[in-house]
Amino acid sequence: MANSPSGDSVTDRLLRVLETFTATRTVQTASEIGRRAGLPPSTAHRMVTELVEAGLLERDEDRRIRIGMRLWELATRSSHALRLRQAALPYMERVQGRIREHTQLAILEQGEALFLERLSSPNSGSNVTRVAGRLPIHASSSGLVLLAFGDRALQEQVLAGPLVPVTPETITDPAVLRRKLAEVRRLGHAIAPGFIETIATGVAVPVRDETDTVVAALSSVLPREAHVELALFELHAAARDIERALGYRR
Amino acid sequence: MANSPSGDSVTDRLLRVLETFTATRTVQTASEIGRRAGLPPSTAHRMVTELVEAGLLERDEDRRIRIGMRLWELATRSSHALRLRQAALPYMERVQGRIREHTQLAILEQGEALFLERLSSPNSGSNVTRVAGRLPIHASSSGLVLLAFGDRALQEQVLAGPLVPVTPETITDPAVLRRKLAEVRRLGHAIAPGFIETIATGVAVPVRDETDTVVAALSSVLPREAHVELALFELHAAARDIERALGYRR
Repeated sequence: MANSPSGDSVTDRLLRVLETFTATRTVQTASEIGRRAGLPPSTAHRMVTELVEAGLLERDEDRRIRIGMRLWELATRSSHALRLRQAALPYMERVQGRIREHTQLAILEQGEALFLERLSSPNSGSNVTRVAGRLPIHASSSGLVLLAFGDRALQEQVLAGPLVPVTPETITDPAVLRRKLAEVRRLGHAIAPGFIETIATGVAVPVRDETDTVVAALSSVLPREAHVELALFELHAAARDIERALGYRR
Repeated sequence: MANSPSGDSVTDRLLRVLETFTATRTVQTASEIGRRAGLPPSTAHRMVTELVEAGLLERDEDRRIRIGMRLWELATRSSHALRLRQAALPYMERVQGRIREHTQLAILEQGEALFLERLSSPNSGSNVTRVAGRLPIHASSSGLVLLAFGDRALQEQVLAGPLVPVTPETITDPAVLRRKLAEVRRLGHAIAPGFIETIATGVAVPVRDETDTVVAALSSVLPREAHVELALFELHAAARDIERALGYRR
């Protein structure tokens, strides 16, 4: 697509505009978008106007801008995220009905755990995970599953650091993380006690495709003191059912 | 953004590219995208390459293109669709647990009912609704709720036709539709027996914001012969809880 005088493509600028919207920053003025995206004000206003006309962004009564319902629709209706999530949902609900804390589905995306779904109960304990949110791959139980069963090159890249702590209990020593990943492969699941929040334990199991490649992690977040055995049993059973629902397993 | 020789903006072309992906056409070649979007092959290939580099589209092992996980993430994480859906989900699950057919959440989008969520049970009856899919506003129970309680100008526009039938039982007579909309307003719910599929009945209730404006429709799809009373009771109770969860009601 056409390039600006500064050499960045329209796609780059579009990406920068979309990236200014986050889970906690859902509405912005066109000027704020421009500033945060590093675009000249006139460029930002022109882009925002065009994107609003196309329905990809929306303008509210106060003329503030948010992500358009049309963009959500187009990005979702044919997405692999939706397919995985729809196949997993009935089995996630079964886990959630029995464990009654949090049940989550994540995939590997750009070296992080990206969460496609999260189910919670009204009385569930603490949990920072959001749908379409991410957690560090070396700290979350989902990330540890995706990393342990994933590409060797990514493992070495993550082990080379930096291993940024999320809590004082997050693994930050590469030798300890290497042993943890070997343990995850040996046990077939990951337990992350206090790695993301000191008061919670994440437990995750792999979801595998027909070539045995791990394509997702199914996880529960439990209060720190909870026993993990029942959650692990339910997660393993659900993962097998999800693999069947996706046609990966007979 | 920069215009092509034909005068359409990059945003127009981007929209046309995204619109070539549908629920049943999730992967395409760059040439197919170009043909379906009405773009010259060189333009299509350049756009696709840029969008793949930005992660907004993805290329699989067979070099076919699909919607990128990054686009889903950016379009979802700050979206109003996610906020509504996350607030509604626990109460939709309660309805689903009691009715065990299909429970759905829809909003009005460009004159149609756009579905943000659908829950189903393994043994549920027939239902054509998809997440991020649409149904006609005059035929679906959700659409009838959104239309009956919506903007008067939209009602007149829809009543002016054409009222395209989905089944032989879809209302296609403007006078009948006008009476149906009055009935929906009087009863506070819509029943659509056989309007979308002859073997199913849709029932829908409104979700209102703090100004009493209807912002969504909560619905069940039942087998045609089923009684609708229990579903309506559960849907009304869930709608009130969703309004509370969204801060629209005390």
